Amino acid sequence: MRRRVISMAVVSSMECVKSVRGVILDMCGVLYDSGEGGGQPIHGSVQAVKRLMDSGLIVRFCTNETQNTREKFVQKLQRMGFDISVSHVFSPAPALIRILRERGLQPHLLVHDDLLPEFDGVDRSSANCVVIGDAAENFSYQNLNEAFRVLIGLEKPLLFSLGRGRYYKETDGLKLDVGVFMKALEYACDIEAEVVGKPAPGFFQSVLSDMNLQPHEVVMIGDDLVNDVGGAQFCGMKGVQVRTGKFRPSDENHPSVKADACADNLAAAVDAILTHHQ
Amino acid sequence: MRRRVISMAVVSSMECVKSVRGVILDMCGVLYDSGEGGGQPIHGSVQAVKRLMDSGLIVRFCTNETQNTREKFVQKLQRMGFDISVSHVFSPAPALIRILRERGLQPHLLVHDDLLPEFDGVDRSSANCVVIGDAAENFSYQNLNEAFRVLIGLEKPLLFSLGRGRYYKETDGLKLDVGVFMKALEYACDIEAEVVGKPAPGFFQSVLSDMNLQPHEVVMIGDDLVNDVGGAQFCGMKGVQVRTGKFRPSDENHPSVKADACADNLAAAVDAILTHHQ
Repeated sequence: MRRRVISMAVVSSMECVKSVRGVILDMCGVLYDSGEGGGQPIHGSVQAVKRLMDSGLIVRFCTNETQNTREKFVQKLQRMGFDISVSHVFSPAPALIRILRERGLQPHLLVHDDLLPEFDGVDRSSANCVVIGDAAENFSYQNLNEAFRVLIGLEKPLLFSLGRGRYYKETDGLKLDVGVFMKALEYACDIEAEVVGKPAPGFFQSVLSDMNLQPHEVVMIGDDLVNDVGGAQFCGMKGVQVRTGKFRPSDENHPSVKADACADNLAAAVDAILTHHQ
Repeated sequence: MRRRVISMAVVSSMECVKSVRGVILDMCGVLYDSGEGGGQPIHGSVQAVKRLMDSGLIVRFCTNETQNTREKFVQKLQRMGFDISVSHVFSPAPALIRILRERGLQPHLLVHDDLLPEFDGVDRSSANCVVIGDAAENFSYQNLNEAFRVLIGLEKPLLFSLGRGRYYKETDGLKLDVGVFMKALEYACDIEAEVVGKPAPGFFQSVLSDMNLQPHEVVMIGDDLVNDVGGAQFCGMKGVQVRTGKFRPSDENHPSVKADACADNLAAAVDAILTHHQ
């Protein structure tokens, strides 16, 4: 009963998405919860994604996942039952590689071993920048010193960070995310990193450009209030937060970011969007 | 010849220390250079310390060293020829332990193995704060996650950092210092650490109190422009920078800190001080 009341409230507050023509979905915490064996789909999400794609709305996926190549990551989601194609998934590494190519940069990498295949074919013979991703166990003192020495040896230290997350939850507890090590290296070198991934506006804009839609025509659905909702709103999109994944009740009183609407989960958000979409 | 000219310039600019009755000396980079086998005294420093102590000026030593107990650290200096007593050396760990006792706090420690004996007798059975020192190889991803989980599990996360240095030089290259990991945990938990050690005013004030002198009667000599010179000046002392250790020519154009005087090394600084001290 309580569930139904909340759902009605969502439908009502979702009027903000009336003229929406496209939806961007965050993945971890919205589609699935990470954990042992790669994680579990969130109840109702597989069906919700299918309904959204069948509705005629343009749908894209946007993740800060950097512990896997995009291909391996999408395969994992497909095994969970999501009918998603690689070309519709936007993740930081391919976006970064475009930037490196455009600017003629050669990276020193401090990333997860499983992300390395993304960089096949990227010249790394003479590093003139440092790239950090969610390197997990690779964030050793030795590897951090090595990345630091490359940076401090450059005339103008240049650091790219694949996201700026603080931490995430795995089955064996909370884990520090890439943003924490970005801050560490920023302080060590007295520089500011360039963030590739959410909430960087350039990253969202590349998704909008692929959808061929204007920001006001698109809604972003995520569990991370600052990086998903706030990042999308900064670009002119609507931002809807789901109460799954890393959602915390205190998000609803955040000092600077307020979601356009909240929903219990992706299924409820999709219900509400499709109610308004004729 | 050039050396003599600089030395005269130092004597002249050192008029700022005319009424000085006490001197605080930084240690690493002023007395000795760290490196293999514990390091090497800087040329002329052993004799300079002796002359200073024989002059009737009150002399204390102030270090952010946290890779050793204070006793072991002083023994190392004594082996280099410095006639220094433990009671005249101020380092962060003993100062922190006083704070923990005063406030009834039990620390979770992320410090160098060789610093652990300082904490013998400190109750750590139920951690309600986290202490980080220059833990070097102990700054593993696993240990950082563990410290983070203690912090984020506290109602009000409380982090003490033994210093806020960015990096230091060892014979095998630059190494990240404790301040970098302080910034990492600050960002992860959205908090500000309490720094114990230079440049924290309370740390300098405990030295002044032991000397029984007023700030304007004391000069601090260090190689670190921000933490030694700036920190001392903030407390009302004079700050003299030596061009040894981590001194960099760009320090002389620092945007916010300007030393009251500079000297080629400790011997030259002591020459100049004793010229003015009758």
